[in-house]
Amino acid sequence: MRIIVPLQGIVQGRGGLILGSLIPCALLYFFQFYLKRNRSSPPPDSPSASTANLPELTGIPRNSSRTSLPTRGSIRPAPVSSRATAIARASDSAYYTGWKKWLEDPYHPTSNPDGIIQLGLSENHLSLDLIEEWLAANLQKSLLGEKRGDLSICGLATYEPLGGLMDLKMVMAGFMSKIMRGSVSFNPAQIILTAGATPAIEALSFCLADPGNAFLVPSPYYPGFDRDIKLRTGIELIPVHCRSSNNFSLSIAALEREYKQAKKRGIKVRAVLLSNPSNPVGNILHRETLYDLLSFVTDKNLHLISDEVYAGSTYGTEEFVSIAELLDTGVFDNSRVHIIYGLSKDLSLPGFRVGAIYSYNENVIAAASKLTRFSSISLPTQHLLVSMLSDTKFVEEYLKVNRERLAQMHALFVEGLKQLGVECFKSSGGFYCWVDMSKFLKSYSVKGELELWENILNVAKVVLTPGASCHCIEPGWFRCCFTTVTERDVPLVMNRISKVLKDHKATH
Amino acid sequence: MRIIVPLQGIVQGRGGLILGSLIPCALLYFFQFYLKRNRSSPPPDSPSASTANLPELTGIPRNSSRTSLPTRGSIRPAPVSSRATAIARASDSAYYTGWKKWLEDPYHPTSNPDGIIQLGLSENHLSLDLIEEWLAANLQKSLLGEKRGDLSICGLATYEPLGGLMDLKMVMAGFMSKIMRGSVSFNPAQIILTAGATPAIEALSFCLADPGNAFLVPSPYYPGFDRDIKLRTGIELIPVHCRSSNNFSLSIAALEREYKQAKKRGIKVRAVLLSNPSNPVGNILHRETLYDLLSFVTDKNLHLISDEVYAGSTYGTEEFVSIAELLDTGVFDNSRVHIIYGLSKDLSLPGFRVGAIYSYNENVIAAASKLTRFSSISLPTQHLLVSMLSDTKFVEEYLKVNRERLAQMHALFVEGLKQLGVECFKSSGGFYCWVDMSKFLKSYSVKGELELWENILNVAKVVLTPGASCHCIEPGWFRCCFTTVTERDVPLVMNRISKVLKDHKATH
Repeated sequence: MRIIVPLQGIVQGRGGLILGSLIPCALLYFFQFYLKRNRSSPPPDSPSASTANLPELTGIPRNSSRTSLPTRGSIRPAPVSSRATAIARASDSAYYTGWKKWLEDPYHPTSNPDGIIQLGLSENHLSLDLIEEWLAANLQKSLLGEKRGDLSICGLATYEPLGGLMDLKMVMAGFMSKIMRGSVSFNPAQIILTAGATPAIEALSFCLADPGNAFLVPSPYYPGFDRDIKLRTGIELIPVHCRSSNNFSLSIAALEREYKQAKKRGIKVRAVLLSNPSNPVGNILHRETLYDLLSFVTDKNLHLISDEVYAGSTYGTEEFVSIAELLDTGVFDNSRVHIIYGLSKDLSLPGFRVGAIYSYNENVIAAASKLTRFSSISLPTQHLLVSMLSDTKFVEEYLKVNRERLAQMHALFVEGLKQLGVECFKSSGGFYCWVDMSKFLKSYSVKGELELWENILNVAKVVLTPGASCHCIEPGWFRCCFTTVTERDVPLVMNRISKVLKDHKATH
Repeated sequence: MRIIVPLQGIVQGRGGLILGSLIPCALLYFFQFYLKRNRSSPPPDSPSASTANLPELTGIPRNSSRTSLPTRGSIRPAPVSSRATAIARASDSAYYTGWKKWLEDPYHPTSNPDGIIQLGLSENHLSLDLIEEWLAANLQKSLLGEKRGDLSICGLATYEPLGGLMDLKMVMAGFMSKIMRGSVSFNPAQIILTAGATPAIEALSFCLADPGNAFLVPSPYYPGFDRDIKLRTGIELIPVHCRSSNNFSLSIAALEREYKQAKKRGIKVRAVLLSNPSNPVGNILHRETLYDLLSFVTDKNLHLISDEVYAGSTYGTEEFVSIAELLDTGVFDNSRVHIIYGLSKDLSLPGFRVGAIYSYNENVIAAASKLTRFSSISLPTQHLLVSMLSDTKFVEEYLKVNRERLAQMHALFVEGLKQLGVECFKSSGGFYCWVDMSKFLKSYSVKGELELWENILNVAKVVLTPGASCHCIEPGWFRCCFTTVTERDVPLVMNRISKVLKDHKATH
C-alpha cells in the first residue's frame, strides 16, 4: 500500500479510474526498483563525512541490505530503523563534546580543583540556596499536607490529565505574568505543560510543520534546537544570520531573503523560531522589531515561535517585552503565535523537567495536549510546584535576588574577560557572556575557532560553547556561561583562560 | 517538493531518466488535482466517522487550500501541520469516550454515589495505602536527607544524564529481577528510563521501524498502542487475531499468515509487539510459545517487543516467564529483543511517570537514550524512587500483599459476574476481567457490542472497555478493570450492570 500512497487521490476517486492510473504507475515503480538494484555502488570516498551518517532513503538501514540480512547466530546486532541509525551515529557537535569531557572530570573547588570547569551548560546555580531553603521548609507539607492524614495519595499516584494539572497551569500563568512584570496576563487554558521546554518545542514543531518543511531561525541560535527539532520531526532549520556589525540584531530583510531562497528551492517555510532574550547573544528584541516580525509572519502566512525561557533572567536596564504583550492590541492574528516557556532557567530547576507551550491556536492546543502523553510531568513534582509558585512572597523575593545576582556575576565576568583583552557583547538577559575572541584565532575560520575552543577545553580545562555550534557566521565568538560557578571561582577561570590566550597571541 | 516524493527513487537515478519519468507522472498528478477540484462533494453519510477524520495525504490541511489561505484579519486560526490536524481531529475510540464521560461525573461512595464508576482505566488503587504509608514515613529523608543540611540541591535541581540516573537504573534492575522472582537478572546499562511506559514504547518504535513499516500485534490488544505508536512514528499496527476457541492463545501460524499478507501488500514488517501478561485478556505466554516466537522473529529477521508492565501483577497459580529468561540460554540473537517495563502497574504509580526500555541492542540503547531528552523523569521523583525501591523490606511486602489483594478482588468480580450469568476468561495477571457478554448482544456484531457498551455506560453508569477498542475480532467481549474500586463497591457495580443485562436479555 505504501508505495502507492501518491495515487491515493485517484484511488479515492471513481473505481474506473483506479486501473487506468495504477497500471502505468506500477510499471514506473517496478522500473525504478529494477534500476536501483542494478545501479553500481558509488565510489568509496564520494559521500561526505556528514552524508555518511544520513540514513538511506530506502527504508533499509545502512548496515543491512536485501542480500545480507543477519541470520540466526549472526553477531551483528539486528538492524534498527534508518532514523535510529542516524540518531545513534549522529556525530556530536562541540557543544555536546565539551559536555561529555566535563562529565568525566568535573571541577570542584575542594575535591577536584584541577577538574574541568563547565561554562558551556545553561544552568543557573546562583540562587539554588533560595530553592533549597524553600524546599527544606515546605517539601513535606507540599506533598503530604500540613499534618499526617492530609495526604491524598490518589492525587500523587494516579493518572493525570493530559497537558498538566489545572492548578499548576493557573500558578504557572501567574508566574509568567509576574515574570513579564505584570504587563500581560496569561490564560491557563492556553497552557500545555510538558516534561521540560525540550519536548514543548518538539511537540509544537510537530504541530506546525510537516516533514520537509522548514523554520527560519535567526542565528547565532541555541545549539539544542538542532536536536530538539530535527531528531524526529523531519523539519529543517534555516539559519538567518545576524552579524556583529549590526549588533546581532534581527533584520527583517534577511528573513525575507532566506524565505525567498527557501521558496526557490521548493522548501515550504512554516514558521520563524527565535529566542528572546536571545540564547546565546543575550540581547532583547525591541518592541518595533516584534511588530515587524508579526507583520512579516502574517504577510507570509507563517507561525511565530517565541522561546522566552529567559524572560525572567534579565539583568540589564533594558525592559523585556513578551510577544504576548503585542497580541493584546488585537491588530494581529494571534493564532499564529506560540510561546515556549519553562522553569529550567527562570526558576533554576532544569532537573524538575517543567516546560510549557503557550498557544493562541485552538488546533495546536488540541493536538499538543494529546502529544503530552509522551512527556508528562511527574505528579509529585507538579504538586510541589503548585505550592512553590503559590508562595507569592517566595517567588517575588527569588526573582528579585536572582536578577541582582545575575547582574553582579555578569559584571564580574565582563570585567574579568576585559582584563584578558576580551570584549563581551552588551547583553541584557540569559546566563551567558557572548564573547569576541576573534583576535586570538590562529586562522580566521571555523577551524581556527574550534582550535582555540579545543585549547581552552584541553589546556585551560574550561568548557565554552563555540559560535560554530550556534551557527554563528562570524568565527571567533564564544558563549560563556557565568551562572555555573561561584564568585570565588572567577579569578581561577580567568587565570586558566588567560594562559591559552597568551599562547594564541604569541603565535598570532 | 511534497508531491514528487514518490519519484525520489527516480530523481536519484541518472539525469536522463528524470524528464522521461517526471513528465508522465506530473501529468497524472495534475489530472488527479483536476479531478479532486471538480469532484462533487460526497453525500453527507458516505465517509465513515473514522475516515472523515483522517488527514488528506496531500500535505495540505483540510481547513486550508491553495486558493484560500487565511489573510490578515482572518478569523480562521492559522493552518497547522497535516499531522496536527489529524491528531487534533482524531475521533476518539470508545476507550477514550468512556474516560471523558467519567471525568465529568466521577463516582465517589459518599460525595457522588450516583456518579460514573470507572472500570475502563488501568489503574490499581488496591494497594495505594501501602505507598501512602511509605511516603509519609520516608518522603522528607528521601529528598532532603536524614537531617537538615544533608540536602544536595544540585542533585535535585540541575540537569540530569539522558536516560535516567544510574542509581535509579540499578534499583530498577533489582526491582525487575524481584518481580520475575529472581529467575533472571537485569543489567542496569541496558535500561533506558523514560517518563512513563508510553514514551518508552514510542521511542522504541522510532528506533525499530521507519514510516510505512508495520508491527504485528496479537489481538485483542491494549487500546493505547494505537495512539502510542501511530500518532507520530508513521508505523502501522497489524492485528493478529487470537480467538476464544483457542483460549485467546497466540498462534505462530496466524503470525506467519499476517506476515505473508503484509509482504504481499508491500508492507515491511519490522517487529512483533505483544503484552505479557496480556492486556486485556490477562493470560500469560507459555515458555514454549516464547521459544516459538523467538524462532519466528529470528527466522523472519524481525524484532520482538515484549511489554511486561504487568509482570508483577499476577495472581493465578501460573508462573510468569519473562522473555529475558529465555535469552540467558544464548541460543537466540538477543539484539532483536526489547522489553517494556514501568512502575505504573506493578507499583501502582502511573502519576510518577516512570517507564523503561530494556534492550539488548546497542544501537537501540544509543538512539533511545538520545530520545529521552523528550521524556525525562523529574529528578525529585527519581530520587524518591531510588529510596523506595532500595527499601527491600517494603518492596517485598508490597509485592506480596498486592498480589493477594489482586487475587481476592479478581475472585470477587468473577463470582459477582457469574451471578449475572456472565463468564470471565480464566486470567492470571493484570487488572482486568476479560468478560464474555456476547449472549446479551441484540445483534452479534461490533454495532451490537457498542450498543451494549453504551447502555452500560449511560444507564448503568459503569465504564467498561469494549473488545472493539482492543481490536478483538469476536463481538461481545469487554475489558472490566477490578482494581479501581473497593470491595464494598462490588455489589453496587454488579447491581448496576445486572439491570442493563436483564433489559438486553428481555429484548434478546
